[in-house]
Amino acid sequence: MPEPIITLTTDFGEASPYVAALKGVILGAAPRARIVDLSHQIPPQDVRHAAFFLAVAVPHFPPDVLHVVVVDPGVGTERAILFVELEDHKLLVPDNGCWSDLARLSKIRRVIQVAEEKYWRPPVCSTFHGRDIFAPVAAHLGKGIAPEKLGPPAQSWVSLEPAMLEKSRDSVAGEVIFIDHFGNLITNIPESMVAALPGKEREVTLAKKQLRCRFVTTYGDAKPGTLLGLISSAGTFEIARAQGNARARLKAAVGMSVVVRGHE
Amino acid sequence: MPEPIITLTTDFGEASPYVAALKGVILGAAPRARIVDLSHQIPPQDVRHAAFFLAVAVPHFPPDVLHVVVVDPGVGTERAILFVELEDHKLLVPDNGCWSDLARLSKIRRVIQVAEEKYWRPPVCSTFHGRDIFAPVAAHLGKGIAPEKLGPPAQSWVSLEPAMLEKSRDSVAGEVIFIDHFGNLITNIPESMVAALPGKEREVTLAKKQLRCRFVTTYGDAKPGTLLGLISSAGTFEIARAQGNARARLKAAVGMSVVVRGHE
Amino acid sequence: MPEPIITLTTDFGEASPYVAALKGVILGAAPRARIVDLSHQIPPQDVRHAAFFLAVAVPHFPPDVLHVVVVDPGVGTERAILFVELEDHKLLVPDNGCWSDLARLSKIRRVIQVAEEKYWRPPVCSTFHGRDIFAPVAAHLGKGIAPEKLGPPAQSWVSLEPAMLEKSRDSVAGEVIFIDHFGNLITNIPESMVAALPGKEREVTLAKKQLRCRFVTTYGDAKPGTLLGLISSAGTFEIARAQGNARARLKAAVGMSVVVRGHE
Repeated sequence: MPEPIITLTTDFGEASPYVAALKGVILGAAPRARIVDLSHQIPPQDVRHAAFFLAVAVPHFPPDVLHVVVVDPGVGTERAILFVELEDHKLLVPDNGCWSDLARLSKIRRVIQVAEEKYWRPPVCSTFHGRDIFAPVAAHLGKGIAPEKLGPPAQSWVSLEPAMLEKSRDSVAGEVIFIDHFGNLITNIPESMVAALPGKEREVTLAKKQLRCRFVTTYGDAKPGTLLGLISSAGTFEIARAQGNARARLKAAVGMSVVVRGHE
Repeated sequence: MPEPIITLTTDFGEASPYVAALKGVILGAAPRARIVDLSHQIPPQDVRHAAFFLAVAVPHFPPDVLHVVVVDPGVGTERAILFVELEDHKLLVPDNGCWSDLARLSKIRRVIQVAEEKYWRPPVCSTFHGRDIFAPVAAHLGKGIAPEKLGPPAQSWVSLEPAMLEKSRDSVAGEVIFIDHFGNLITNIPESMVAALPGKEREVTLAKKQLRCRFVTTYGDAKPGTLLGLISSAGTFEIARAQGNARARLKAAVGMSVVVRGHE
Repeated sequence: MPEPIITLTTDFGEASPYVAALKGVILGAAPRARIVDLSHQIPPQDVRHAAFFLAVAVPHFPPDVLHVVVVDPGVGTERAILFVELEDHKLLVPDNGCWSDLARLSKIRRVIQVAEEKYWRPPVCSTFHGRDIFAPVAAHLGKGIAPEKLGPPAQSWVSLEPAMLEKSRDSVAGEVIFIDHFGNLITNIPESMVAALPGKEREVTLAKKQLRCRFVTTYGDAKPGTLLGLISSAGTFEIARAQGNARARLKAAVGMSVVVRGHE
């Protein structure tokens, strides 16, 4: 049996020992597991950020990888824990919608409610299911346990509403759904919707303020400081600043409305 | 021989090349070693933080893992470097007490002073023993060298005093010993001492100021913003804020006194 | 064939999904690859920082490791991507000089321009060559493809000018080239040049202001707060502050001039 690959995505940060505890429990139960850190810097309890993150990152992984996600503001409450098998990916997640964006990209094969306590680490601490449920269950999955042993099929689950996206005759309106480390503003407006706008000219507004945006193919195509409109690596419209930080310059935030309008 | 697992805990941060240098030296001498990052964000030179971190994280790992800890304000001075074998864990540490909290949880089997220079990387730089002593010694241990070859048994070592903990008839007084990424204040007051307090009512003071704390089982059990008293995943009393940050709200810091009083 | 080791050095930060996407693509194409994070916290687009980082970190790695570097302000423009084989190390880098400092330490065996698109991940996004070119090419190299298949030999490449370094009869002048997480100021002035200065007394100026610096061997050799002059773990002159942060104290920045003068 090959070494199982288990990825970790959390909002724990790295100064606290929680990530290390997860790794210890996984290696304790599945010493041959290869643990791959995706991020431990999801903003605390930000399920929407996690959802975007997973939708952009997970599709690139091979199908036999198990993705463990512990961004879990509802830890210890009645919220369920789910094993999710998509057509191409497997996840262990709290039932808070963090996999909603990913689920729109892939067919759902089965969703199992993690309920069988014999695969957990007793006594389960009600503030740290990551260590006491997610990690030991991940290790068992890594060792090849059949997922149906973890619990019954889930009958329903939490879904996040997709961000606002509206098309009119000459414009498309969406939202900033993510801001990266470089300060680039990623929206949910698909490349195809921008391409379908009439005319050649494009006007962009952010939170109802018009921007002077130059449409380019990549960051290096304009002089430093220029505001840029381009297609992000996620395939959606992005606002950036050449060799600068658009977030800081525009005082932008996730959730702000973005409208792209086309005319001759 | 299986692949040795070597974990790294440092205060190096990740923008500087010191962590990478450690990894290079380890992989250079033991290419099959599996390096697992625990944290590189221990606050600079904060031995107490490291001690708490290790006591919470290390117990979850299987016994054959080697934990390398480089939080080392005394680097290059006469402070010793120790190979520590606890009943369940193995560590390579500077002799500054960073393993004191962990040692209270586990029996000490042997402590060896790392002195045999032939396992080091010459010339040893007096400001970077991590690269020139810890990493090559870890690689040799990973390749199966007998620890007694590293040097003589240590006769004594530095121990950190445990944080203040005092019990009276109707109260227990301790300290904030750690604040996590979510702003939760972890104290050193064991769950059992809180449980043993008289009556059902609990009063909490932080740095002598009384808090209105609701006692709950987990974070989601109260409305956002409520101050919470609960048992941390480390098994001690914790002050948190539902969907918020108790550190910021209370201007809390490590070392502040915490008193829990019980009455009818 | 042994498991290939692939290291990653980027300026992506860890809150965004870009690092995770790289890892996914690599593991998708080369599932047995062992990915080692060097840093994802190179300051955004700071090629000089990357150059220093690589020169300090890479020499410690064994020769068969592939180092993938994605600090790439020119992504999507005409800048080339290079496979570089030094006498002791192999890198996949954007052609922006990020390997210049390393190249001064090692003989160049060959430099290949990454041009053969069949090893890329189509469609290549012009803002994310890391995911669409670097990662799949790294995976192919990890699986043992001959580097000459990637493209033709490069005829020339970008080199960064080394930082200013001037010697006079009784002094040597250089620059702060790096400031680490502890606030230590690393210069480009080699230990040998400091040792060769006349007399026993040493005067240090930073940005033309004279410092009261005590020359020591390591940080613990002076009282807390003392400004220190010492030899860094990179083998060059360093300004530090005992149990403190020299950067904060001196309001220092990379690029500031440093002069060390010797007299009786």
